[in-house]
Amino acid sequence: MKPGKRPLSENCQAVSEVLARVGDKWPVLVVFTLGRGAMRFNELKRSIDGISQRMLTLTVRALERDGLVTRTVFPSIPPRVEYELTQLGRSLLSPVSALAGWAVDHRTAIDGARKKFDARDDAKSPKPRAA
Amino acid sequence: MKPGKRPLSENCQAVSEVLARVGDKWPVLVVFTLGRGAMRFNELKRSIDGISQRMLTLTVRALERDGLVTRTVFPSIPPRVEYELTQLGRSLLSPVSALAGWAVDHRTAIDGARKKFDARDDAKSPKPRAA
Repeated sequence: MKPGKRPLSENCQAVSEVLARVGDKWPVLVVFTLGRGAMRFNELKRSIDGISQRMLTLTVRALERDGLVTRTVFPSIPPRVEYELTQLGRSLLSPVSALAGWAVDHRTAIDGARKKFDARDDAKSPKPRAA
Repeated sequence: MKPGKRPLSENCQAVSEVLARVGDKWPVLVVFTLGRGAMRFNELKRSIDGISQRMLTLTVRALERDGLVTRTVFPSIPPRVEYELTQLGRSLLSPVSALAGWAVDHRTAIDGARKKFDARDDAKSPKPRAA
């Protein structure tokens, strides 16, 4: 094994764990959306196409657990509940936006590569190949 | 609905699709590892802790389909197969490294937030709460 080709170790675990959260589309979209400012649950739900009430509930709770989002209850009648990014959550906006920007910029290239790949003979009739 | 709080639209779909790939830990770790240079399958496997032969096979194939990795067969005996990042794949290194760096930098903060959250009464005995 050449120098510098050691297995990725502890940091790798940290990266995996965070990616499991920030790589999942709903948490990312919630963090993105809250980047615009504090929002009530229903406002957040309306702002994120296709998210269910249950999925949004689970997602904001997981983000709250990670310390990325705060949930504040204002004692009005009915109680008003607002979600907002914490400082930690706001610090995530920049790398997540960079990744999202990459996704948007290279969407066409990826789509093109997939079409080309799927048109290949070995993609049409997969068979064992040398690793 | 306030201005600027429209539902995320087309770009959101692109972002979701890319995150589904780059947010998954194995593809990210393969892209990271190939950032050091071209590698043979077994070299790649040794460099990534815990990945199975089958998972690595599926992962490099998916990355090849996305146009992020090339697979080159050298006609030796036995045939030598090398995997390498494409230009598109290399362009992904920077935003992915930024996200990984964030993960490493804020790992302790996230762990701390989780412990604090899990110690809360409403986390111990979850009950319906106002959205």
